[in-house]
Order: sequence, then structure tokens, then C-alpha cells
Amino acid sequence: MIRSGDVPDAVLEATSSRRLVDKAAEDLAAARRVGGRLVVPGDAEWPAWALLPLANAAGRGLRWACPPLGLWVRGKALLSELLERAVSVVGARAATGYGEHVATDLAYELARNGMTVVSGAAYGIDGCAHRGALNAEGRTLAVLACGIDQSYPAGHTQLLDRITGRGLVVSEYPPGTQPARHRFLVRNRLIAALSAGTVVVEAGVRSGARNTASSAAALGSVLMAVPGPVTSAMSAGCHELLRDGLATTVCTAAHVIEAVGQFGDDLAPKPTTESRPTDSLEGDALRVHEALEPRIEQSAERIAELSGVALTRVRAVLPALELLGLADRPETGWRRTKANHNPTKAPPTPQTQQTNNQQPAPT
Amino acid sequence: MIRSGDVPDAVLEATSSRRLVDKAAEDLAAARRVGGRLVVPGDAEWPAWALLPLANAAGRGLRWACPPLGLWVRGKALLSELLERAVSVVGARAATGYGEHVATDLAYELARNGMTVVSGAAYGIDGCAHRGALNAEGRTLAVLACGIDQSYPAGHTQLLDRITGRGLVVSEYPPGTQPARHRFLVRNRLIAALSAGTVVVEAGVRSGARNTASSAAALGSVLMAVPGPVTSAMSAGCHELLRDGLATTVCTAAHVIEAVGQFGDDLAPKPTTESRPTDSLEGDALRVHEALEPRIEQSAERIAELSGVALTRVRAVLPALELLGLADRPETGWRRTKANHNPTKAPPTPQTQQTNNQQPAPT
Repeated sequence: MIRSGDVPDAVLEATSSRRLVDKAAEDLAAARRVGGRLVVPGDAEWPAWALLPLANAAGRGLRWACPPLGLWVRGKALLSELLERAVSVVGARAATGYGEHVATDLAYELARNGMTVVSGAAYGIDGCAHRGALNAEGRTLAVLACGIDQSYPAGHTQLLDRITGRGLVVSEYPPGTQPARHRFLVRNRLIAALSAGTVVVEAGVRSGARNTASSAAALGSVLMAVPGPVTSAMSAGCHELLRDGLATTVCTAAHVIEAVGQFGDDLAPKPTTESRPTDSLEGDALRVHEALEPRIEQSAERIAELSGVALTRVRAVLPALELLGLADRPETGWRRTKANHNPTKAPPTPQTQQTNNQQPAPT
Repeated sequence: MIRSGDVPDAVLEATSSRRLVDKAAEDLAAARRVGGRLVVPGDAEWPAWALLPLANAAGRGLRWACPPLGLWVRGKALLSELLERAVSVVGARAATGYGEHVATDLAYELARNGMTVVSGAAYGIDGCAHRGALNAEGRTLAVLACGIDQSYPAGHTQLLDRITGRGLVVSEYPPGTQPARHRFLVRNRLIAALSAGTVVVEAGVRSGARNTASSAAALGSVLMAVPGPVTSAMSAGCHELLRDGLATTVCTAAHVIEAVGQFGDDLAPKPTTESRPTDSLEGDALRVHEALEPRIEQSAERIAELSGVALTRVRAVLPALELLGLADRPETGWRRTKANHNPTKAPPTPQTQQTNNQQPAPT
């Protein structure tokens, strides 16, 4: 029970109209009927550490960040365990096929890598996030803006049941509470707080993404956004977050895990491509190689003139290229071997200029 | 003429094989035959200020940044004039339909806004950039990795001719020079140097984008990247530049103009959406409005209980909502007027909790 001395005067005044309503026993019974329970501070599964940022932010004067007094939960998992490695994946209800694909895929990979996928169970991105995690037989947690006994949205009744099978459905509103606009805002702060980071997959310019973004920023949580076509209105909110420097660009689950994971442990691999036979060539060797023709044999002197590399160096580099299989000398002169592929190569002319180039790869 | 005292020993050695080749008169005649000219320092149209960053970077020891000794140009425009407000639009040769669409559109809008679109005349993004600018009857400049008398790539012969009609084709290589890999690298530094900023529209992970990026960074030029689907290999290079913090996210010509334009003068407009009748509501008024039902009339006392707003405030807020056309009192109680649309609204229950929410908009 909250002693009235703990409650600020403003709250006492605002709740004056319902001070005398006591439904505690009724609420607990309603939760039990759907297999739910009330988790409060002091319980073994109360995620005190996860809620600390909310308490800290509230302490700095951000009234909206006030931590929940308790959480109604439904499902087999333990709340604190589920939140140990958790990331939120959220976005537009009116998602595109692209957004739904990316959300499902991202959540699948995150869950497969042991992350709990937190979302809001809404249509669109949220639903795909939960489904992706479930498909990977991973863990997922839905934070509702209504009671845990409500099926909202109605089309997600089955999905919510599946979530309770492997994870949890959570709400700070008691059973029976219906969704309303201000409750979504309150709920969004929990989504931001309960996870190490929040990924916005798709969002319109006017959307909850802004709201989640400011919550995440205030709570010191990592905000990430998935880019998309600049021609898509459903990616405009993500791009705005990126342009405003509020979110980090993430394209894959590895990027997300790098951003929220253990410092130094979870670095995303750098993208790689097939290597080319000429990758190892630099400076003079690259320039000499460029000067070679595939079909015409040329003298070392001519190659020196074309490449702008001194003749002594050319004479040292050509046998090295031959060892690498990049050049040969069938009869009197040197030529490029056919195995090697270089689309920008064209017959060189006597007019090659001197360049002091140290850069890595051509456009 | 360059006096040999100006030339470092390394250059003298590297060019030893072609020191005696003198084609000056021949080159000038070849340029004149295609309507071209050689622009050198001291000429009225020499863009000294545009090349300063190259000289500065070279002075800091970056050998590749060495400014050109002269520029071969073909076309009706004056070089220095064309570069007054210039931005480079570059990207992959193997562009997707998305990239080609965005490049064309971006260049069109940039040219329509008085910017000169600089690019490299390659297939894919480069070609679209030039075409977009030409379609807007704007100005465009192609920097080649071969002589200005060459038609490279062959399929862009007509495009190059169209560019000389409204802009310029430029190269630091004399007439007759064929393209070769190291010349593309040398050319890329000019594309980065000659414009106030460089936009990468599409790029693979292994691409010239990296090269252009390091040039732009070293020259203090603005590097921008257009996001795209994370499922597209042709956007992977752009996303890598964004993730590495080397480039700024740009989605529209307005974003580009803001990034390279006059400080404070060329700010991009913030995206806007339709306003809703409830946009002006905040705090208590929003909460009271949420508690109203469209069909059921409710007493002020009941609304106070539902909304968690003190009865005295509810009595003050309801007439205000009536004035805004958001509530009315047909008989004994208050209800929400039908004109207003709120998709998240659902029948409230007696169990609404107290929340101190100050956030702007729901998910």
C-alpha cells in the first residue's frame, strides 16, 4: 500500500475523484483468471536494474519517466531473466512489405542470438517483430497499453497467446484497462526503458518514433533506425531520426547487437566481398600492371614510359607480377595474363601523366 | 613550362622514361579540333579558390591531393562560373532502378535550384545525375578519367555532347589519354575537390565511394549518402559510410542544399503532415477529451474519475473543449463530437491509472 505521505499533492488532487475506488482484490482475481500475476518491487523477478534509468530520469525532473509501481505479467518466463539481454524493435502500424520483411528478419536473427525482442504487439512492425522472434524459437516480450487480459488489437489475440507461451505479455495497467491515447505514450517509455536499445524499423514523419526517440535519449538508451528507400513515406521518420543525429544507422542484427552488446565483445563483422587477383598490388606494381596489355607484348622501356614508373623499378616489378600469375613474357615482351579481369582497363597511350596516387580503389 | 627546379627528385626519376616526349603543340591542336581548350592558373576562368583545398591537403603531405597543373575543358560555360555553386552526385555503375530514379530526381532538383551537378559521366548513377541536370535545363560538369576528345564510356557519346552544350566536360589528362584504373582514382579527387559536397547515391561495399569518401574528408568537403533498402547490395556502401560517421544522411535536394549551402540561408524545410483537430490539446485537456465517449453522455464527475483530472479542472476544461468543437452537451452529460477522429480511443473503464505524461504523440 502507498502511504499518503509518499504521494505528491498534485497527484492527490488529480486522483481526488477516484480515491475511494478500491478494486485491488478484483484486479488480482482477473489477472489470475488469464494466468497472469502482479510483479512488484521486492519480488525475485522484479527488474529493478532495468527500471533504474526511469527512476534516475524522474529524479532529474522528467515526470513522464516515473517508474511503474508494479507490472502485471502473463506468461511462463521470469520477467527479470527475460530482460537480461533485450532489445526493442518497433515501428509503424501501416508498415510496408519492406518494413515487415526487415522487422521479421531482424527479430529472427536477434532472437536466434539470444536477445529478447521487446515490442508493443501492434499491427505492422510490432507484430512482425514478435513473430520473427517466435519463428526463431526465441524469446519475446510484449508491452501493452491496456490490461494483460485484453486482446488488443483484436487481430493479435492468437499472437498474444503465442507470446505468453515463450515469453511475457506485460502491462502496468490493471486487468480490464482499455487502450487510450495517453496510455500508448506511457507504454512507450516502458518499451524504451526495458531494453538496452530500441530499433525503429519504419515510421512516418508524424509517429511514435519521435516519442520513443525522446524517451530513449532521456533514459540513456541506444536508439537505432533502419534506413529505407527515400521514396517511402514509411521510412521518412527513420531518416529524420538519422538526420537529427538521434539514432544510429543499423542494417542487420549484427549491427544492433554491436550497438547494445557487451563493449568489444559483440562487434559486427565488416562487410566483405570477393577478392580480386590484383588486390595485393600497390603503388608501382599496380601502375605497371595497368600499363600491361592482354594481347600486345610490350618492352620494359615502353611500360616504363606508359606507367610513369622508373625503368629500374619496372624491371624489378615485372618478374614479381609473373610470380603472382598476373603477367607473362611469351616471346620478346611482357603482357597481362588473361585470368585477370579489369573492367576499367583500356589501351594506354604514350601520354600518361605522372600521378602520386595513394588511394585504394577506383569508382 | 615547369622548371626542373620545381619538380621533386622522385618525380624526375619516375618520369625519366618519358622526359623527352614533347607533345604540347599536338595536344593543343587535338583539343581545338573537338572545341576544347586548356585552362591554366592565371586564366580568368581558372578556379583557384576551388582548388585551394587540394593545395592545402598536398601541403599537409597528402601526395594524392596534388592540384592539377591545368585543366582541359570542352563546352560553352566558363569553368570558374560553373563551379560557384556545385555539388557532386556520384555512385555505382551497376545501379538499381531505385538508385537511378533517386539520382535523376536529385540532380534535377539541384540543377533547378541553381546548383551545378558534377559527376564522372560513367554508366549508372553518374549518367543519371548529368541527365537529371540537363532535363532541368540546368548546369552540369563531367570530370573524365581520359582525354576530353575520348568518348568514354562509348554509350555516353551523345550524353557527353549534350553536357558540352550547357556545361563542361573536364579532364586533367591531355587529349588522346585512354581511361585506366589509376586515372579514375586521380579523377575522383577532382570530383571531390571541385564541388562543395559529394552525394553518394548508390554504392556497393567495395566501391569508389570509399575512395571518394576519404578524398572528401581529407579535403574538408561535405560527404553525403542517400539511404536505401537494407536488402539492397547497391545501398550497402552508402549505409557503411553513414554507419562509420563519414557521411551525412540526405534524402532530398533540400537536404543536400542545406548541407552545402550558405550557413543559415538554405535550411531544408522540416517534413510536415496534416494537422488533427486535437493537436492543440495538452495535459488535462487531452486527458479529459480521451475520457469522453462519442455516443454516451457522461457527467463531469464520471469524467473526472476516468481521466484522473480533478473535478474542478474538468469543469473548466469541458466548456473549452465545447468552444473548440471537440465536445458537446446534448442533454444531461458531456460527449465527444463526431467530427473528431481518434483511432486509438476505446471505451474507458473505472480503472484508469494516474499518469504524469508530458510526451508529444502516440505510437
